[in-house]
Amino acid sequence: MKKGILIVISGPSGSGKGTVIKRLMELDRSFVYSVSATTRAPREGEKNGVNYYFIDKDDFRRRIDADMMLEYAEYCGNYYGTPKKEVNENLAKGRSVILEIEVAGAMQIKKKCPDAVLLMITPPDYATLEARLRGRGDNVPEEVIRKRLDTAKVELSHLSEYDYVVVNGDNMVDTAAHDIIGVVEAEKLRVARQSEYTENFFA
Amino acid sequence: MKKGILIVISGPSGSGKGTVIKRLMELDRSFVYSVSATTRAPREGEKNGVNYYFIDKDDFRRRIDADMMLEYAEYCGNYYGTPKKEVNENLAKGRSVILEIEVAGAMQIKKKCPDAVLLMITPPDYATLEARLRGRGDNVPEEVIRKRLDTAKVELSHLSEYDYVVVNGDNMVDTAAHDIIGVVEAEKLRVARQSEYTENFFA
Repeated sequence: MKKGILIVISGPSGSGKGTVIKRLMELDRSFVYSVSATTRAPREGEKNGVNYYFIDKDDFRRRIDADMMLEYAEYCGNYYGTPKKEVNENLAKGRSVILEIEVAGAMQIKKKCPDAVLLMITPPDYATLEARLRGRGDNVPEEVIRKRLDTAKVELSHLSEYDYVVVNGDNMVDTAAHDIIGVVEAEKLRVARQSEYTENFFA
Repeated sequence: MKKGILIVISGPSGSGKGTVIKRLMELDRSFVYSVSATTRAPREGEKNGVNYYFIDKDDFRRRIDADMMLEYAEYCGNYYGTPKKEVNENLAKGRSVILEIEVAGAMQIKKKCPDAVLLMITPPDYATLEARLRGRGDNVPEEVIRKRLDTAKVELSHLSEYDYVVVNGDNMVDTAAHDIIGVVEAEKLRVARQSEYTENFFA
């Protein structure tokens, strides 16, 4: 059985990353979306095992110590991370797994899983990014918007550590989702992922 | 203007490489096929500038000395090579250029043009390769077939130096051609080919 591909997707707030991934999952049912674990409290409407696995801090720390997390980060006083078991089981079954994670987590995956594909979803330009962040709600304080723009800049400065960039233009969600599907299809043809072919050829 | 992608395609005799590339050129008119230069005599029906640029040995050697060849090799007493100028002009115009060349030439390109994409077209398995080589004509001596099979083995042993492998199964020419188009589309999204995006983003 050929191993699935681990696809790490990051993107700053305002890239439309969530919408693109949602569309991608609708267009191609072969992908598995990895549900993260977190110690933050569920928000209204969030379901355990769907949006996140909601666990307490002692439990999360125990899992870190037992090497059960593929990556994790602390953010605003809470832990966020990827449970290793489910990801590895799906990859072994030949399913491609999508991790929607921040840059810090992506860098951990890059070290631990050198055959993972790192992809960043980005806005087409700075003006679009700013327009999207301002357009989200009328009563977001200027200070918060500034902070989000600064964070986006920092995240985009890590682009060179990613393998692919998918630009998500306004009203281009389908194009961006198809771009990602195309990247995964091409990655399947990489010689480095075809050891079975070479081994079997002269068998 | 964004630079085009240089695509090097190799494949042993019996891989169906020629048929796949012909179909690829029909399916996607954006590609440019690089016409090789050779010192061998034209065969019946071959046209100068279409199948090859037919030049004499002195001329070929002069071009090697003047660094006008991107790669070249000597084969059965004749030179074969890729004229540099046309390739570079098309790449500069943003066109993706296909070089259909042997392993030795591909290795030269890999050194000189690290951003070239190396792709090998292969038969699905050894039995298919043998059947295809035997099926080509009833009066091919066993010795010639053996030699072609041996050459194919040597060429396939270089697979690990290529980036992608496209398996061309029987009656799967369209699939193989679409695979190659998909690879080129995905390569366009590589961060390493997107320096313009990064440079322009904060401009």
